[in-house]
Formats: sequence, C-alpha cells, structure tokens
Amino acid sequence: MKVLFIGDVVGSIGRQMLQDTLPQLKKHYRPQVTIVNGENAAGGRGITEKIYKEFLQTGVDVITMGNHTWDNRDIFEFIGTANKMIRPANFPEGTPGIGFTIIKVNQLKLAVVNLHGRVFMNSLDDPFRKADEILEQVRKETNCIFVDFHAETTSEKQAMGWYLDGRVSAMVGTHTHVQTNDARILPEGTGYLTDAGMTGAYDSILGVEKEIIIQKFLTQMPIRHEVPEKGRKLLSGCYIEINDQTGKCVKIENIVINEDRPFGGEFY
Amino acid sequence: MKVLFIGDVVGSIGRQMLQDTLPQLKKHYRPQVTIVNGENAAGGRGITEKIYKEFLQTGVDVITMGNHTWDNRDIFEFIGTANKMIRPANFPEGTPGIGFTIIKVNQLKLAVVNLHGRVFMNSLDDPFRKADEILEQVRKETNCIFVDFHAETTSEKQAMGWYLDGRVSAMVGTHTHVQTNDARILPEGTGYLTDAGMTGAYDSILGVEKEIIIQKFLTQMPIRHEVPEKGRKLLSGCYIEINDQTGKCVKIENIVINEDRPFGGEFY
Amino acid sequence: MKVLFIGDVVGSIGRQMLQDTLPQLKKHYRPQVTIVNGENAAGGRGITEKIYKEFLQTGVDVITMGNHTWDNRDIFEFIGTANKMIRPANFPEGTPGIGFTIIKVNQLKLAVVNLHGRVFMNSLDDPFRKADEILEQVRKETNCIFVDFHAETTSEKQAMGWYLDGRVSAMVGTHTHVQTNDARILPEGTGYLTDAGMTGAYDSILGVEKEIIIQKFLTQMPIRHEVPEKGRKLLSGCYIEINDQTGKCVKIENIVINEDRPFGGEFY
Amino acid sequence: MKVLFIGDVVGSIGRQMLQDTLPQLKKHYRPQVTIVNGENAAGGRGITEKIYKEFLQTGVDVITMGNHTWDNRDIFEFIGTANKMIRPANFPEGTPGIGFTIIKVNQLKLAVVNLHGRVFMNSLDDPFRKADEILEQVRKETNCIFVDFHAETTSEKQAMGWYLDGRVSAMVGTHTHVQTNDARILPEGTGYLTDAGMTGAYDSILGVEKEIIIQKFLTQMPIRHEVPEKGRKLLSGCYIEINDQTGKCVKIENIVINEDRPFGGEFY
Ligand SMILES: [Fe+2]
Ligand SMILES: [Fe+2]
Ligand SMILES: [Fe+2]
Ligand SMILES: [Fe+2]
Ligand SMILES: [Fe+2]
Ligand SMILES: [Fe+2]
Ligand SMILES: [Fe+2]
Ligand SMILES: [Fe+2]
Repeated sequence: MKVLFIGDVVGSIGRQMLQDTLPQLKKHYRPQVTIVNGENAAGGRGITEKIYKEFLQTGVDVITMGNHTWDNRDIFEFIGTANKMIRPANFPEGTPGIGFTIIKVNQLKLAVVNLHGRVFMNSLDDPFRKADEILEQVRKETNCIFVDFHAETTSEKQAMGWYLDGRVSAMVGTHTHVQTNDARILPEGTGYLTDAGMTGAYDSILGVEKEIIIQKFLTQMPIRHEVPEKGRKLLSGCYIEINDQTGKCVKIENIVINEDRPFGGEFY
Repeated sequence: MKVLFIGDVVGSIGRQMLQDTLPQLKKHYRPQVTIVNGENAAGGRGITEKIYKEFLQTGVDVITMGNHTWDNRDIFEFIGTANKMIRPANFPEGTPGIGFTIIKVNQLKLAVVNLHGRVFMNSLDDPFRKADEILEQVRKETNCIFVDFHAETTSEKQAMGWYLDGRVSAMVGTHTHVQTNDARILPEGTGYLTDAGMTGAYDSILGVEKEIIIQKFLTQMPIRHEVPEKGRKLLSGCYIEINDQTGKCVKIENIVINEDRPFGGEFY
Repeated sequence: MKVLFIGDVVGSIGRQMLQDTLPQLKKHYRPQVTIVNGENAAGGRGITEKIYKEFLQTGVDVITMGNHTWDNRDIFEFIGTANKMIRPANFPEGTPGIGFTIIKVNQLKLAVVNLHGRVFMNSLDDPFRKADEILEQVRKETNCIFVDFHAETTSEKQAMGWYLDGRVSAMVGTHTHVQTNDARILPEGTGYLTDAGMTGAYDSILGVEKEIIIQKFLTQMPIRHEVPEKGRKLLSGCYIEINDQTGKCVKIENIVINEDRPFGGEFY
Repeated sequence: MKVLFIGDVVGSIGRQMLQDTLPQLKKHYRPQVTIVNGENAAGGRGITEKIYKEFLQTGVDVITMGNHTWDNRDIFEFIGTANKMIRPANFPEGTPGIGFTIIKVNQLKLAVVNLHGRVFMNSLDDPFRKADEILEQVRKETNCIFVDFHAETTSEKQAMGWYLDGRVSAMVGTHTHVQTNDARILPEGTGYLTDAGMTGAYDSILGVEKEIIIQKFLTQMPIRHEVPEKGRKLLSGCYIEINDQTGKCVKIENIVINEDRPFGGEFY
C-alpha cells in the first residue's frame, strides 16, 4: 500500500499549494491513501466545514488534527459527522470527534491514528497507553497502520517511534512545522519521521508573517498571528510504502517542494 | 571560506563516530574551519578538559555549547583558558567563559557565535539583542560570521534566522538532536538550518538509551539517562560555503551519516 | 509612612469591591499612599484609560501591572502619559511605559517599582539585575521603596524577597490571585508577602467564572474566560508601615475582606 | 472528626520542628487523625524507610507525597508494605504504591486521598477524573474524606476545590511551600485551603539554603539544593473539623508557627 502524508497545511496559501501540487504528487507516487494534517487550515487556526469538504474534493482521504483542533468554532458544527477527520485520540474522554479511522482501499484497509504529545503541551491522556488501546482494536482488522503523532519535542516523538516499532506501519510526527531529515525504517519495520513539516508560506515563520513573530520575540507582547496570503510557497510531507501482508514499512521518503527545491529537481 | 559544522556530539560513542568520520569529511569538503557542538560530549552531560583537548587534536577548531554547559563540573577548571570553546553568549553576565570567538584562517577571519533560546528553556538574556551587540563588535573585523543557536522551538530558531538574515553568513540550530530538512539560503544571503542534529548512538532516543526514556514517559519517574557505549552510529551536521568578501552564504548542505545513509552513498 | 496595597483587581466586580471598601480601609489604616495592581481590571484582561482614571478618582495613587498589561489594546492610547501607572520594569527595552515611579507625600517620597518573574512566564530581562539598576537610581531620592513582584512561583518570589532584604521597604508579590499567609519582616528590615491575592468575585477561580475553568481542565479545550458580574466579593491586599528615616518596614499585615471575614470582624 | 494536616516537611530541620511541636498541637487541637506531607523529608528529596517509621512514632497517622516521591531510591524498598503512606493516585498505572487509604478511628473512618496537579508539572493522569473514580469507591465506606492536592498553580487547585465541593470533607493543597490565607468552607461544605505551606527552615527559600537559590536565579546554572541544618524553624499546616455523619467540614483553620508567630500567641 502506498500512502502520501502532507504536514500541517497553514491558511489559504497552504491550501492553494496543496491544490496546485497534489495532482503531480499523485501522478508521481500513485498513493492509494492521501492524508493531510489540517489543524492550521483555517487562517492558521483550526478548520471549517467548508475547508474539510474542499480537502476531500482535492483528493484527500483523511484529515488529522492537533493542538489547534478547537481554534475555529465551526468545527463543533460538523465534527460529529465528519468521518474522514480525526483528532488526537488521547484528548479527554467526552470531547467531540474520533481519534482513529479505518480506510478501505479495494480489498485492503489502512488504519489512521492521531495522537498528541504532552511535553510542553496540554495535559492530555497518556498517548503511549492510548496507542496500545487503539492498536489492540485495529489490529483485528488490519496490519496497515499509520500514526500522526502531533508533539513538540523530539524526545517524545522518538520515544513513540521506538515504542510502536513493529506494531504500526509508520509513525510520522507533526506540529513543529519544520521537516526533519531522519526518515528511516526502524529495526522491527516501522517507518519513522520525527516531523513532516508544514505546507504554506515559504518565507514565513512556521507559516505565519515573520515580522509579527520577530516583534513578539523582541517585545514579549501578545500579538495576533497573521498568515501571509501571497508569496512563495512550500509543501512538506512524506511518502510511505507498506507491505500489505505484514504491514511493515518498505520505504519512507521525505517530500519537500519549494522554489529552491522544485518538484522533479535533483531531490526527486 | 568553507565551514564544517557537526551537531551535538553525545558521549564516547559520539566522539568515536566523530574521530572515525572527520578525516573522510575533511577530505571531501576541505573545510577551513571545523566547528563541533560539545555540550553532551562527556557521557551526555557537559564536557571535560580531556575531551576538549581530544576534540582539538581530532581537528576541531571551535567547540560550541548549550544548556548542558555546566553539567560536568570539570568545566570550571579549564573554561577560563579554553579559548577554542564558547558557551552561549546570552548566559547571565558574570558567568564563566566567552560567547564568541574569531578564528583566523590565513588572511581570513571567521567569527563563531553561540546563542541560546529561551522558549521552554532557562531564563537567559535576550538572544536577539545579544546578537545585535555581538554583531556590532565582530563586523568591525570580519563579514564571515557563523552562529550556533541552541534552542528548543522551531519558531524561535526561524525567528532568529530571519532576524539575522543578511547580517551573518549562517545560522545553524542545535539542541533537538534531530536534523531538520530545511537547509536554505535566506533572501539576504544567510545560510540557515533549523537544527544540525546529533552525533552518537543511532538506535537511541536523542543519543540516550531508548528503553530508559520510554520507561520515563510511561512511569513519569525520574530516571538517570545512560548513553549507549556500543551499537550503530550516526553523525549529523552541515557544510557551508561563504563568499569571503561579502560574507554571504553560497552553499549550505545537510550532512547525515549512518548505516542507512553511508558516506559516499546516493546522498553525496 | 503608611502604605496600602490592593492585589489584582479583576473586572467590574473587583472595581466595585474596591470602591465600596476603600473608604473604610483608608479610615482604618490612614495610608499616605494607596497602590493597586490593575492588570485584570478591564474584564479580567488589561486596563483602559477610563478605568485608570476611575482608579485615581477612587483614591488610588499608583497602579501596577503584570503579564496582562497589553491585553486591552486601549492601553497603547494612554500609557505614554499615564504617569501614575507603572508596568514591569524588566519588560524589554523599547516597550511603552515606565517601570517605576516616585510619589511625593508632603516632605516624603515613596518609590514604587514593578517587576515581573520569569519562571513559567514570558522571557523577560532579569528582574534581579533590573532591581539593582533601579535601586541605584531611586535610593538617591528616597529610602522608602515598595516593590510589586508579579511572578508565578513561590521560589522566585522568596528569592527576590531575600535578594532585596535591607534594600527596599517592602516586596509584595502578585499574580497567583491567592493571598499567602507569610507576611513577615525579613532580618534586614524588608516587609515581605509572597502574594497579596486578588480583589473580585469570591465564588470564582482566580476571579473568573468557575464552571468555565473546570470545563477547561476537564476538556483541555480553549475556552474564553468570563468574569462574573454578580455575586459575593473579595478584597485582598496588605498594609505596610515604613520608618520614614531608615526606609525599614515596621509593620506588614494581611488584609482580606469577604463575607466569611467581614471588615471589622475578628481578623481586624 | 478532628484532623490535623502538616504541610511538606523539609529535611531534618523540618522533622525536628514536627517532633518539637506536634505534642503541643495535639494537646491543643485533639485531632483523631494527623496527616503529614513527607515528599521532602529526606534532605529535601523524597523519603526513607527510617523517616517513614520515625513519622509514625512521632504520632503521624498518614503520610502523603508529591512530585518528589521517587527522589530517594530507598522508597522502592518499603513502599510495597508502607500502608500508612500514599503517593499521588493519578501517577501512571503500574507505578508502586497506593493513592488513597482509609483510616479507622474508633467507629469512624477517614479516607485520605493524594492527588497531583499537571499544570507546569509532569504528565500524569487526569486528577479530576481520578478523584471521581476514587470517590465512587471510598464513599461506600465513609463520608469523611480528606484530599491533599499537590499542585503548582492556584487555578488548578481552586478548580479542584470547587469540583470536589460537597463530595469531600476537605481539600488542602501542597507543593508551593508557602501557606495561603484563603482557608474557607465552600458552599456545599468542603473545607478548602489552596496551600498548607511547609515545615522546616524559616530563613530559607522553600526550605532550601537561600543563597544557593538566589545564585541559581542570578547565574541560571544548575546548583545542588542544600537544606539548612540549623537556624530558626517554621511549621505550617491546618486544622479541620468534620461532621462525622454528613462528612461536611465544620471548621478549617490555618496553623503557622515560627518565631514571629509563636504557638499560643495572638494568632491562637
Ligand atoms: Fe500543532
Ligand atoms: Fe500545526
Ligand atoms: Fe544537546
Ligand atoms: Fe541542548
Ligand atoms: Fe492578575
Ligand atoms: Fe498576572
Ligand atoms: Fe512538591
Ligand atoms: Fe514539597
């Protein structure tokens, strides 16, 4: 099974980049499942029903989320029926939404799981034990399991990677908005990447107007983030190949597209 | 000017990897200056005089540090005379050591600056204003300036990169121990990489025994970190080329060496 | 000299409590200077010019601030001329406002200084060194010095108290909104209280609607705080007596007024 | 039922203060149950079996713990059988020890529960839901329930107080080592105190050598804490009276004893 994962899409410029680039990526990689992290899709903060539907029409199969899940209050209107969108599974019990889903691709199934870190983040349920709980359930249906672990620190992400090694097909991190250069297949067969990076404004700080963020650091004043609407664009993600029988990862490859690294250039 | 930077060397296994690999790297890249982050060199925690001298003998020109600077008390014995070692310049006034140094290479000079982030870290002086202060001083002597910004978050690192763009030759981040895949030359000519990654045990969590760290996450108990002494190794860093006249970056390239990406393989 | 200090006034209910109670307090304590922390005065978030003027009319001499200083954007309109309002002195250079002021009372002068902690808070300049800097300046004019140290942790507050012992007349903490029971005169003559507590809704969590905060803890969702407009009220602060000649504290006393501890009851 | 609670006993000086003062306190208050927080009893870090037994001999009925539970490795030797010591109930499943206990006093029973906060602390299980779970269990046996909530922030502590109001006899906070001045009975009958404060060196910072902590703030270097062995002492805690039938709190009173507030003085 071939899976395409695109990291945190930030604002309209990010959604535009996704729409412009996804056809080429699909042509090149021929993924059976395309997954996008959408926690910053609505102007950098959360997601709306309109954007959710737009993602599906663009050819996205599953949308994952993160700490910005609830930022746009529109989500409360549609999350109850949005069965292609998952939010971190270790959010407290009783919060809206689902933490994993199983996608059917012809005869095959891919379980997609969303988990959230705790170091320097909100006080959530233990993502390690929550992973155990979900794996027990989904492994009855399929060996092909993809995990988006939305977390701040490299230690928590690497710990999750090793913890899941041999039990999921791939664990890819999100949240830092900067892609890491450590894609690898762990010894027991799990594809691993600490962070997939972001999709949005290239000349920005994590997708946000850079002057605003610099001012924030210099003045320590609260300043509202703005996502640039124009300018150069970046798409970040990864490509994963899974052995359908064993669920082991066969290949994991970084994807970065921007003016400095155009698609089809030396990096491909 | 050609500069080789190697990210956080962790423990004896990291020092061994550096010794084994540096000759090849020097042969390949022909750097005039080699810089190594040494904050984790002594068993993962700090540095000793013995290791400092060993680094210099191995062919390292400057050692940078970070939040682990003071972990091994041996440093207080030699930091006063160790003029090839710098610690973050924005440590509080009155603390031992120096925050930048200027290296002479034939007729040329390279200023090497060490700065430290504040988000999710200790309460230090403002690294942005400290950078301004140091730049005013060193630019009287040279345009060629390399900055190791030891920081946790991608936002603070990108902010520093954009803040310094056009004023330093390169800013490379350290501390997360995971190399990022975003090496680029910013519009005003500064080479940028969010994190250079680490050098040490490949099958580890940030260079530390992985089982210990996983237990820490599962039990939330305080457990002493141990650096593996054996096993597969990883070296991470980057290569930078600077225009001697303008001080602008001409090239910045990731370096990752491990069993999955052997030196001289398709990545080189 | 007699000084009355009132801790963080939260919302209109807090301002109401201040207006209702200040006359009695003034009659009882006969303070020459009345200081109020106003960082939460405007609906819990920041302050407005209208409220600033209202405070002065109510009989407040100096208003101190904290981490919520910039929450209400109205402040940018009047902070430049509001010479009775101070914000933390260790805010970054170049930010609006002043960090201390000197109040004349007949022949006497009281310096009022506002400082801000760094542990679990924003990355500000070192409040300890900033205190040294300000003390050098103000001690030329007066020995009577009052410090409002707005900080989260008891360790940073006690450290500041001991650091300033013998150099200021009193250091009173703010920010936690809960009054501490440790008013004392330190050995060198500085009056000390870890936190003065808040003034506002009594049946609340830190002055905010309690059901909202409980939901926040249970769901870990971002929820907008609301300050109750009605209900039982609380006033918290302290009373300080200073020897005019030496600037030493002669007396420091907790003040708490609510339905359970009415003014004039056994606690007075 | 009458309950005496003594806040975090720090080091040998704290234990000495407890031994010296407990007889007077018992004579004065006549408590049926005496509870002590012992997380800092062994030199400021954790507890040993020897100290545990010493506490019981001194007349302590239950020892509660906190974030320093595991600091002294001796605990692993005796926690399995130490049925008078409880550690936070929301520590991860599988960690040693118990989170609550039920003490028999003649015909009556008092449940003592230990919970741990999460804000600015370790990533533990949800203390609110854990409280629900435990209450369901213990309320089958008794209405008299005492909770030590070991937490950093006033917001989390007040939230827990209101959350438990009417369901427990009293919730007293610990951890900040500074007693708060907000003892009250909440509307549904729960006695509440944000923090009981500490027992140990009076001229210290949270029970630790003050010069060391000040240096830590000034240099941001890692420095080993030392508990003073001599000097003036402080005891902090509270006294609680519970209606045996209803389990409601009838009285809650601060206790602070030091040279400035001698036992039997105006505060008693
Ligand atoms: Fe995120
Ligand atoms: Fe994001
Ligand atoms: Fe490091
Ligand atoms: Fe580091
Ligand atoms: Fe406040
Ligand atoms: Fe505050
Ligand atoms: Fe504690
Ligand atoms: Fe403690």
